[in-house]
Amino acid sequence: MGNVRVSNFSVSLDGYAAGPDQSMDAPLGIGGEQLHEWAFATRSFREPLGMEGGVRGGVDDDLVAKGNGGVGATIIGRNMFGPIRGPWGDSDWRGWWGAAPPFGHSAFVLTHHPRDPIEMEGGTTFHFVTEGIEVVLKRAQDAAGDADVRIGGGPATVRQFLDAGLVDEVHLAVTPILLGAGERLFTDAENLASGYTCTGQTPSDAVTHYHLHRAG
Amino acid sequence: MGNVRVSNFSVSLDGYAAGPDQSMDAPLGIGGEQLHEWAFATRSFREPLGMEGGVRGGVDDDLVAKGNGGVGATIIGRNMFGPIRGPWGDSDWRGWWGAAPPFGHSAFVLTHHPRDPIEMEGGTTFHFVTEGIEVVLKRAQDAAGDADVRIGGGPATVRQFLDAGLVDEVHLAVTPILLGAGERLFTDAENLASGYTCTGQTPSDAVTHYHLHRAG
Repeated sequence: MGNVRVSNFSVSLDGYAAGPDQSMDAPLGIGGEQLHEWAFATRSFREPLGMEGGVRGGVDDDLVAKGNGGVGATIIGRNMFGPIRGPWGDSDWRGWWGAAPPFGHSAFVLTHHPRDPIEMEGGTTFHFVTEGIEVVLKRAQDAAGDADVRIGGGPATVRQFLDAGLVDEVHLAVTPILLGAGERLFTDAENLASGYTCTGQTPSDAVTHYHLHRAG
Repeated sequence: MGNVRVSNFSVSLDGYAAGPDQSMDAPLGIGGEQLHEWAFATRSFREPLGMEGGVRGGVDDDLVAKGNGGVGATIIGRNMFGPIRGPWGDSDWRGWWGAAPPFGHSAFVLTHHPRDPIEMEGGTTFHFVTEGIEVVLKRAQDAAGDADVRIGGGPATVRQFLDAGLVDEVHLAVTPILLGAGERLFTDAENLASGYTCTGQTPSDAVTHYHLHRAG
């Protein structure tokens, strides 16, 4: 079985993984897109989205490529799939990513509201799971086989898996800005303190990458 | 007039500047001393305290020396001066640092309880100021002359000055550990978001140093 990991997860220097006032127009919250500029600038980020340009090679591009590689299934929270709250009704929302999302594998959406799977172009199928983090992780691991399961976000979803001790590796990209408000990745969680050790910090021109592994 | 600055201020990767449960025996909170190991290991930290050893030169030692240099007055919070709460009574507490504190200049202690100044060995005089941050800053700037005023800590004191927009430069040392709980430097403060820009990030073997300046 592969690892369970968080990769290329951007936080501000003051600890926010999204800006305040997330909405349809500002899915990353106000100012939140600044957190990801380092990744937007890489070829490995842009290529799967069909976008031109981007820097090939270097610390940032290498880590984006490494983060995307070897992943057999992704778990995301409801908010990362879309802005809709409450029951799905007859919504035809199919995610933020258009007809061919960049996952290319099964993406499991944690939600309180059941919905049939949606098969997208390019190999992505969205599955909607209402039974909580242990069940969604089991289903993702079954789908991934020997490959890794990636916890894609948002912050609340990553935090749930961290608090439950279910994550093997965490790679954070600290963007040197102060957002001042928004959604934190880390809230008080004393069980984390002894659970993870930092095994590397890698600066790029834009950010500093921190690599954490679960102890023991 | 010099700058108002915060230098060599250590925070954990999850944003804590002190561990939980601060006490007489654990003035930095549980686990809090780990935040400062990078500084303890430098010659420039140890020399003013009369301690042997420490690495001379390199990123960390250079920044400790730079942080201590050119400071004409320091402002600290009550908790950084000592563990006593409430009125001073007939306490003979003279700070955490022994007979000759490392400041070597006037150190202004923010407190709600008046007390006569205490002249220490080595040039440090503790002044106790009850009139709030604007007044203490004025007094510190008068004492410093052309030199800088340093906001020494703890986290609550630094935050007060940051929130009021009174700090010109902030140098943070992010120590790659997760404390899980404790006292944060940054709490929600939307006025900070546009107030500071990061002008440099410098990795050492132990930490990453971030340099922030007040915009415009």
